[in-house]
Amino acid sequence: MAEVFSSEVFLAYSTYSTIVLLKMLLMGPLTAYFRVTRKVFVNPEDANAHGAKDEESKKMYLRTDPDVERVRRCHQNDLENIVPFVGIGLLYALSGPDLTTAVMHFRIFAASRVFHSIAYLVPLPQPSRGLSWIVGMGVTFSMVYRVLKAGVHL
Amino acid sequence: MAEVFSSEVFLAYSTYSTIVLLKMLLMGPLTAYFRVTRKVFVNPEDANAHGAKDEESKKMYLRTDPDVERVRRCHQNDLENIVPFVGIGLLYALSGPDLTTAVMHFRIFAASRVFHSIAYLVPLPQPSRGLSWIVGMGVTFSMVYRVLKAGVHL
Amino acid sequence: MAEVFSSEVFLAYSTYSTIVLLKMLLMGPLTAYFRVTRKVFVNPEDANAHGAKDEESKKMYLRTDPDVERVRRCHQNDLENIVPFVGIGLLYALSGPDLTTAVMHFRIFAASRVFHSIAYLVPLPQPSRGLSWIVGMGVTFSMVYRVLKAGVHL
Repeated sequence: MAEVFSSEVFLAYSTYSTIVLLKMLLMGPLTAYFRVTRKVFVNPEDANAHGAKDEESKKMYLRTDPDVERVRRCHQNDLENIVPFVGIGLLYALSGPDLTTAVMHFRIFAASRVFHSIAYLVPLPQPSRGLSWIVGMGVTFSMVYRVLKAGVHL
Repeated sequence: MAEVFSSEVFLAYSTYSTIVLLKMLLMGPLTAYFRVTRKVFVNPEDANAHGAKDEESKKMYLRTDPDVERVRRCHQNDLENIVPFVGIGLLYALSGPDLTTAVMHFRIFAASRVFHSIAYLVPLPQPSRGLSWIVGMGVTFSMVYRVLKAGVHL
Repeated sequence: MAEVFSSEVFLAYSTYSTIVLLKMLLMGPLTAYFRVTRKVFVNPEDANAHGAKDEESKKMYLRTDPDVERVRRCHQNDLENIVPFVGIGLLYALSGPDLTTAVMHFRIFAASRVFHSIAYLVPLPQPSRGLSWIVGMGVTFSMVYRVLKAGVHL
């Protein structure tokens, strides 16, 4: 069982998958932080819990805020890109790639996604966010190629 | 191959992952149920299929409904939290944890997510939903810690 | 390590998982294509980068477009259905199913999701999209049944 963890490639996959999934997961608390500090809610029960006493303040709290929406879009982009990386990366790690190549894939992906979040949240002028998105996707495409090359059963 | 299934920890991971993924998946039919019974659609072809005969009734059907949006937010929160659990949980199950500890992690996570959905959909007053969200995330963080402690390759 | 890849069932899982994850991933570039060609953006920095020179053209670019929203809904539906398939499919592939049965599951799922995207994007009249969604979900439910039947640890 623990055998799989004795492989260096799988260990690298485990490390980087955990890092990017953790990064993605932290967008949740970040959204909550912006919602609570700016008093921007979407559920009436949340507005109530954060001090909306009358109907008027309740209405004021139930609105959209550009910064909250920005964090949510960043989170959504993580879901759309990090989740496929984790799925395809597992198959890639099990397909017996060269350790150096594999670690390079994982490192570039993780770096591109951390930079993507920074570029989204600051925000940095384009094309910084667009390029980091493309780099991350390129890594996943490269792993797709390797997985399918290692063996196909249709 | 089937060896991995002979490990009790992996079997527990398999059971609880399946349960929470199934719970997440069922939010889709629930959204569809609300859309069809309340005649609230987002695609014109859906409005047509559910009896919107003229332009006026078509417009009436293409709207947003607070309850449909609530189910969708609940579904989205599942995607944001259950998917990382499934990914990190796999690595956790393979990292050779103690069976009792592992099962406790899985049980608390599954219970917190089922309660989260109930708290979201009823809805229960806050902080019930917030707390169940935090508990689920805490379980995932604890598994992250264990996975990274079991071995890191950067 | 590479042992798991010598199993035909796992190889089939690897192939079809990669195909559907790749299909899902390609919805991102498709959204970007529609945004750029139709000049429909959600981030001010994106509008700037695509030639919004003054405040007026900037406002004009920051809007929603029915076709962009359609691609995004299609992408979201993929996240909601393909991700659970990949997670449950892994457990299913490891549970020692019959090769013919497993390949049939994977083929039907992949075909249903490709058809779902076509039905969503053309769009085809309902119930074509609804039926393909139900077929895909039916495959996942069938795999859930098999995984839980292979062994449960609560």
